[in-house]
Amino acid sequence: MTHSAAGDAGGNRSAEVVYELAPGCTLEDIEAGAAYLATVNGVVDYGVFVDLSEHVSGLVHESNLQNDHDVGDELVVELVEERENGDLGFEELDADPDEVDRTSVNEGTAARTGDLADHVGETVHLEGDIVQIKQTAGPTIFSLRDGDGVVPCAAFESAGVRAYPAVELDDTVRITGAVETHEGALQLEVDKLVRLRGEAADEVRTELDADLEARAAPADVEPLIEWPAFEKLHDDLADLARRLRRAVLESRPIRLRHHADGDGMCASLPVQIALERFIDEVHHDPDAGRHLLKRLPSKAPFYEMEDVTRDLNFALEDRERHGQRLPLLFMVDNGSTEEDTPAYRAVSEYDIPVLVVDHHHPDPDAVGPLVEQHVNPYLHDEDYRITTGMMCVELARMIDPSLTEELEHVPAVAGLSDRSKADAMDQYLELAADAGYDESDLQDIGEALDYAAHWLRYQSGRNLIKDILNLDCDDAARHRELVSFLADRAERDVAEQIDDAEPHVEHERLDNGAHLYRLDVENHARRFTYPAPGKTTGELHDRKVTETGDPVITIGYGPDFAVLRSDGVRLDIPNMVTELKSEVDGAGVSGGGHLVVGSIKFVPGMREPVIDALVEKMADAELDEDLRSTLVRDD
Amino acid sequence: MTHSAAGDAGGNRSAEVVYELAPGCTLEDIEAGAAYLATVNGVVDYGVFVDLSEHVSGLVHESNLQNDHDVGDELVVELVEERENGDLGFEELDADPDEVDRTSVNEGTAARTGDLADHVGETVHLEGDIVQIKQTAGPTIFSLRDGDGVVPCAAFESAGVRAYPAVELDDTVRITGAVETHEGALQLEVDKLVRLRGEAADEVRTELDADLEARAAPADVEPLIEWPAFEKLHDDLADLARRLRRAVLESRPIRLRHHADGDGMCASLPVQIALERFIDEVHHDPDAGRHLLKRLPSKAPFYEMEDVTRDLNFALEDRERHGQRLPLLFMVDNGSTEEDTPAYRAVSEYDIPVLVVDHHHPDPDAVGPLVEQHVNPYLHDEDYRITTGMMCVELARMIDPSLTEELEHVPAVAGLSDRSKADAMDQYLELAADAGYDESDLQDIGEALDYAAHWLRYQSGRNLIKDILNLDCDDAARHRELVSFLADRAERDVAEQIDDAEPHVEHERLDNGAHLYRLDVENHARRFTYPAPGKTTGELHDRKVTETGDPVITIGYGPDFAVLRSDGVRLDIPNMVTELKSEVDGAGVSGGGHLVVGSIKFVPGMREPVIDALVEKMADAELDEDLRSTLVRDD
Amino acid sequence: MTHSAAGDAGGNRSAEVVYELAPGCTLEDIEAGAAYLATVNGVVDYGVFVDLSEHVSGLVHESNLQNDHDVGDELVVELVEERENGDLGFEELDADPDEVDRTSVNEGTAARTGDLADHVGETVHLEGDIVQIKQTAGPTIFSLRDGDGVVPCAAFESAGVRAYPAVELDDTVRITGAVETHEGALQLEVDKLVRLRGEAADEVRTELDADLEARAAPADVEPLIEWPAFEKLHDDLADLARRLRRAVLESRPIRLRHHADGDGMCASLPVQIALERFIDEVHHDPDAGRHLLKRLPSKAPFYEMEDVTRDLNFALEDRERHGQRLPLLFMVDNGSTEEDTPAYRAVSEYDIPVLVVDHHHPDPDAVGPLVEQHVNPYLHDEDYRITTGMMCVELARMIDPSLTEELEHVPAVAGLSDRSKADAMDQYLELAADAGYDESDLQDIGEALDYAAHWLRYQSGRNLIKDILNLDCDDAARHRELVSFLADRAERDVAEQIDDAEPHVEHERLDNGAHLYRLDVENHARRFTYPAPGKTTGELHDRKVTETGDPVITIGYGPDFAVLRSDGVRLDIPNMVTELKSEVDGAGVSGGGHLVVGSIKFVPGMREPVIDALVEKMADAELDEDLRSTLVRDD
Repeated sequence: MTHSAAGDAGGNRSAEVVYELAPGCTLEDIEAGAAYLATVNGVVDYGVFVDLSEHVSGLVHESNLQNDHDVGDELVVELVEERENGDLGFEELDADPDEVDRTSVNEGTAARTGDLADHVGETVHLEGDIVQIKQTAGPTIFSLRDGDGVVPCAAFESAGVRAYPAVELDDTVRITGAVETHEGALQLEVDKLVRLRGEAADEVRTELDADLEARAAPADVEPLIEWPAFEKLHDDLADLARRLRRAVLESRPIRLRHHADGDGMCASLPVQIALERFIDEVHHDPDAGRHLLKRLPSKAPFYEMEDVTRDLNFALEDRERHGQRLPLLFMVDNGSTEEDTPAYRAVSEYDIPVLVVDHHHPDPDAVGPLVEQHVNPYLHDEDYRITTGMMCVELARMIDPSLTEELEHVPAVAGLSDRSKADAMDQYLELAADAGYDESDLQDIGEALDYAAHWLRYQSGRNLIKDILNLDCDDAARHRELVSFLADRAERDVAEQIDDAEPHVEHERLDNGAHLYRLDVENHARRFTYPAPGKTTGELHDRKVTETGDPVITIGYGPDFAVLRSDGVRLDIPNMVTELKSEVDGAGVSGGGHLVVGSIKFVPGMREPVIDALVEKMADAELDEDLRSTLVRDD
Repeated sequence: MTHSAAGDAGGNRSAEVVYELAPGCTLEDIEAGAAYLATVNGVVDYGVFVDLSEHVSGLVHESNLQNDHDVGDELVVELVEERENGDLGFEELDADPDEVDRTSVNEGTAARTGDLADHVGETVHLEGDIVQIKQTAGPTIFSLRDGDGVVPCAAFESAGVRAYPAVELDDTVRITGAVETHEGALQLEVDKLVRLRGEAADEVRTELDADLEARAAPADVEPLIEWPAFEKLHDDLADLARRLRRAVLESRPIRLRHHADGDGMCASLPVQIALERFIDEVHHDPDAGRHLLKRLPSKAPFYEMEDVTRDLNFALEDRERHGQRLPLLFMVDNGSTEEDTPAYRAVSEYDIPVLVVDHHHPDPDAVGPLVEQHVNPYLHDEDYRITTGMMCVELARMIDPSLTEELEHVPAVAGLSDRSKADAMDQYLELAADAGYDESDLQDIGEALDYAAHWLRYQSGRNLIKDILNLDCDDAARHRELVSFLADRAERDVAEQIDDAEPHVEHERLDNGAHLYRLDVENHARRFTYPAPGKTTGELHDRKVTETGDPVITIGYGPDFAVLRSDGVRLDIPNMVTELKSEVDGAGVSGGGHLVVGSIKFVPGMREPVIDALVEKMADAELDEDLRSTLVRDD
Repeated sequence: MTHSAAGDAGGNRSAEVVYELAPGCTLEDIEAGAAYLATVNGVVDYGVFVDLSEHVSGLVHESNLQNDHDVGDELVVELVEERENGDLGFEELDADPDEVDRTSVNEGTAARTGDLADHVGETVHLEGDIVQIKQTAGPTIFSLRDGDGVVPCAAFESAGVRAYPAVELDDTVRITGAVETHEGALQLEVDKLVRLRGEAADEVRTELDADLEARAAPADVEPLIEWPAFEKLHDDLADLARRLRRAVLESRPIRLRHHADGDGMCASLPVQIALERFIDEVHHDPDAGRHLLKRLPSKAPFYEMEDVTRDLNFALEDRERHGQRLPLLFMVDNGSTEEDTPAYRAVSEYDIPVLVVDHHHPDPDAVGPLVEQHVNPYLHDEDYRITTGMMCVELARMIDPSLTEELEHVPAVAGLSDRSKADAMDQYLELAADAGYDESDLQDIGEALDYAAHWLRYQSGRNLIKDILNLDCDDAARHRELVSFLADRAERDVAEQIDDAEPHVEHERLDNGAHLYRLDVENHARRFTYPAPGKTTGELHDRKVTETGDPVITIGYGPDFAVLRSDGVRLDIPNMVTELKSEVDGAGVSGGGHLVVGSIKFVPGMREPVIDALVEKMADAELDEDLRSTLVRDD
């Protein structure tokens, strides 16, 4: 029943073997260079028409005929031409059909990856896309995906040698082979692998696309709370869910980069869990979750060149070593600003789509052309108050609605972590209260996340964060004790830091009436420990706002950076940075942020003139009671 | 002979199959929902008593009977009730025992993991604990441990699907299956896996515990030298050996964290080798040593939050990926102080026992409640002179006494490295001399260890350290040349550092008559190279003690830290730190140490007032000829 | 046909079995302690001479005879003596040859690893060296290499137990066993493994050496351009190619350490690709390339203790875990100076040969004795103008001549990157132009390499660098866009850095008429970003040279280092460093370089006196129009 193990990879075939196609066989069952039995069904001036099966017919031109034939005669032919319009041309071989060794080619059973368990031991056809090609010391493993799922197909040329070298990732193919179990898992032992072209390929692809699109459809879940502002984002999130589900179905790895703070954790972990569950559903390999999804915390407030270089490097290596596709990059609570664009430019040279969900002030003109989707409340005239954690909880539910109950407290944690002043916070707090978390529990979880994120540095800490967030955590008591321990430590460390810093804080009253507080965080804060300079500055600022009740600006500066926070003053930091760049010569000013919070960098030798110029601008800034700083980033 | 592959994991069973138990079968051979052949052995008013085998009998209550029966009649029953007292209740099924398909259930052979080689191809029972559960792309692998050892048992539900999902780590079970060899190693192909409960479980566990306890017993070795002070620690070390051997027997991974200096290396490497050999004896997997034991050098003088976060993260990931237990944490030459407690608090939320062997000044009130065992000479009114290396050499011998000969020089290296002034040093030096090492060899080994530890940073450098310490080293000439090269380099680097520093050392005579030497190690020592600030300060101090012969205090300070050493002065550094904390406002003072050696940290901007206040306290300190600084730590 | 599976590993053999050798059997088929059938072929006073096969004969001394025998009698004997001269002595056993169970020992077929595919299912002999020994949970895998290649041989003692423990890496052996396929790859199932000694071993080794030497021979390629200066290096490079090819044939891993700049990348990547292709040709394992070759960028201008410690650590671990040989160390565009010698001293304690190809000013007296080969234009009275990239392109072609076409533009990139003023640059530029690259393309590639190397830090970035260098890159458009993007970024970052630095550059005119420019790169350059201090200094210097047209010296200094560049002044930096060391007390001066470029380190507190003394020396330096600084290194 095996046609030729060599397939189009070439190999030694006996010229004496003549294949006899079963009636159902199609063009895909024909190999170049092989001999087939044909029957004459028409004789014309310029040759004879022959049938090889019900679906395979063509002309043997007179110049290619060895003998005269009548209708009904058998002859042995080889395919010599396949025209654009599908017409086939054959050549008669010099062989007597009655003398040759006939080998029948069975069309096999058309199957789908979902049915294979019913066909163990049988030969079947599968049609679909190649989504991974892995060379082993023995066979080459082609992962074929159809509308049902993905199955490994082992093709053996010779030990360690790539079979079917012409076949590439994303080719649409038809594979014939025996269904077997290998170490307990189903696989196909490839008899024949044919790249489909033209109409045949289009047909398979269209069907596959429809199947994938249907399976990629996000769940239609009601938002956890009623909130008109949020509703504007619903369609964007549904599209995002569809893209992510589709990536899983297509075996495209996902690299999730997120801001390493409380909101970023509340956003990324639910999506991680939802995707992992969906991966488990789609892929039989228990390691698929680890191969197809990586969550990576980013310390910087933007996508750094060093990070993107590392990401690209890993992606290209995985493609080479494991035959994986290049990944989809998913930026969470990060990735909206002009500072992200160099990294995006770098990945744009490769087939790496970028998706972003963020609530930081975006620069859509810079970012838009480089990302495939950008979900951000500012793009709908809303703002940071809709935190990324709130959005991603809905996103996770659209990917896997069974998560809903476990997630009910998470938007409240995210909101408190990022000090969201949204009116809807009350509803989120109520929802969390119904799930058994009071506001101080939620605050503690936020602090614990922030503290753990600090010490985890570049590790994702999946299981630890699950226990802190009480997501997929098998022991509620451990969750509570862990949170209490970490939140206590965080609070104590912050209190000690601020207590030691306070005596060294310089205060002045600016011309516009705002209080200005300055702290040298390099010299008057502990280094390389929690809280980092950004957090230290933020906590000091909050204390001063509470103490004074007046408009307050706080600057925490180190040798080459300053962290800025303000309440009740319209600073417009991006504008200040632009002005400082041109006004202070040779200072290497850069930075960003938005109206009330941000950070700037400069060369160490120009700190004094930069900060002096900055303070002058602050003294000129307009007071605005509505402006409260809420979002701060460590760097 | 297979009863039902589905076991309690559920699955499709034909209702028509009736199992006929062999006479030796017990309750464990019965499955809920399955049909069994029974024989009536008594008739009472309220029903009939039936036998299913010699060991399985019970009542079919009249309400559960379909027909009338006499003694000797056969009927088909199903188990419906298992009372606390062990009584069983059955229900008659509507089936004619003469019509049904009978399948006999063989009791199999009761076997132990140690006998399996004699049963290849046979079906056997094993009883024991599940110590690892690993899901593969095919079967689920349950590692079963009994008193003899551990054997993998492969249970197949369907490809990549967890078999027996109700069975968890540490469950006591009975597994029936065929003994096979898989890639040359023995394994059981699971026919049936039953969780034991109640008495049956207790019985297995009691026996298993007794077996494990017997195998965990430490070797009864004579100490290498006679030393009454050390004898007080003997029982503690024997307990430690028992705990570590037991962990190996229970497949619990061990994470050994040790101080990365000469004594710490002399302590940890012998224990590592002893444990690796014991692991090889117990576990057939040649990779078991690497999976079950990790040695990790710690640069800090205590267990840092960053390290514990990393340890927890790896432990939780290994549990998830490889189905391993959480590890035992073994702190060596480290871990006795209050500064270790936050990390201990973090691991205490998980099932991670902590054992400590250390000779640094302990804070037993802080540490005691958080660790399972704390071995420290100070807890027996002895002191640092019994070094951790000395203790761990005895510990290693208790774990594997065959190591004795190879280890005879190690306590002397440890003692010299930590400048132990113990009287027993003479005996250790003699022992080393008998093994072919003179004192300068031992000094060189210590220097070489210290130098290598510096450059290895966070790597354990197992093979390199083995060659330096001449432990399990296959080439004595290489050992000698390597030590000579590294010790020369270390000595030269130290000499250059001190020569360059000397001209910048500030000297004054304190009121109490002691010499005070100060060195700015940030500005007058090479950075990021060997020797690090702590070592630099120590070497300078030693030179000054030798030069003057008087009481000496040495301070090596950087931007935010100071390393302190003293000879002949009672500094009591922990007390000084406490006083500085409250006296110097906003300085963020922390630190530790003991009477004559220690280090403090502060915020950079407060260095001057902190050091001034410190020097004032030093000038007031009492001279005490007995106090010699010996233990110093880099940080 | 199996003789005894136990082989020399011992094992239980039945004493009643008597082996009957086939005529072709040799001494290697004889095992100590086994009984053999012999035929008397001569009777002498002191015993009888016996034949066991055509090739195995010897004496049974009368003291070892049990019975009287005539010529032609059969008897049962055991080998008792093997003399130096090859004479064999036997002892008669008390067994009647007509009563015993005879088992014939077939000599098998002598085969070579290249023929095995023709012998699947048969028993064969292989002779060769053991190049890897890997213990698995099942059998021990011995990799045997003969003149054709390497094949894994699986020997099973018991699960996870080392078979033939006496056999070590590099032993010459004869293995008898059945040829099988395991997971699609050929392997031998070992029946018997014998270590060859004496003449037998010598014979095999001699033949093997001849085969390897023949296969190791470099390709005889014409240099890309005619350049007499370069021709002097041709033989050195051919030797290097031979050594590297031979390492691949011997399964010795190669650790390639290279300078992480443009020239270093242009040098190391072609060699990496050539070696990978040769590995693929020799080794069937598709992972062999990754196991046998590691390319590692070095940031420092010499081989640091930290790097060598890490390299040694990995090498020793790989040897232990995977049974690999220790590696060959290949230093590229680095490794010629006295500063490299401590690291070389460390590896010299192990079997790790060191090869160097470099164009930095060498110290052959220091380096020579520690490396096996040192290729450097200065050793042939040429200089840096022959860049390492130029040399390595020829080296790569000698390893794999099929690379030639892809590499034609690479020497020009290397030359431009290192500003080679060689006359031959014109020819290289022409060659590149013919391949479609104009000079600005090549400049851009160099800048892009430098920029990518900066962000890759310690990662090799193989695929990214391939795309930048357009080597083995599947998409020319991506190459172009990636280079354009990276080169633009690099240029912009450099321009911003220099623009910010300029206002803070201090200028003076030295007594010798040279301009001196000083820049505090710590305080007036951005930190931790591109360009690093060395590059910043170099770019500033170039700007000043262009602006003034006069002799120029530029110093870029940080807290503990200074980067030096000069044009038209004979600085002789190594000499200056030596003088500063002795003249400036307590400054910890070190460093290196050559006439016009270099760097020095010092302790931060002594920066001022060191730089003052340095400037004084510079003012005394001789002007020399021929000296142009061209090679600069970041650190």
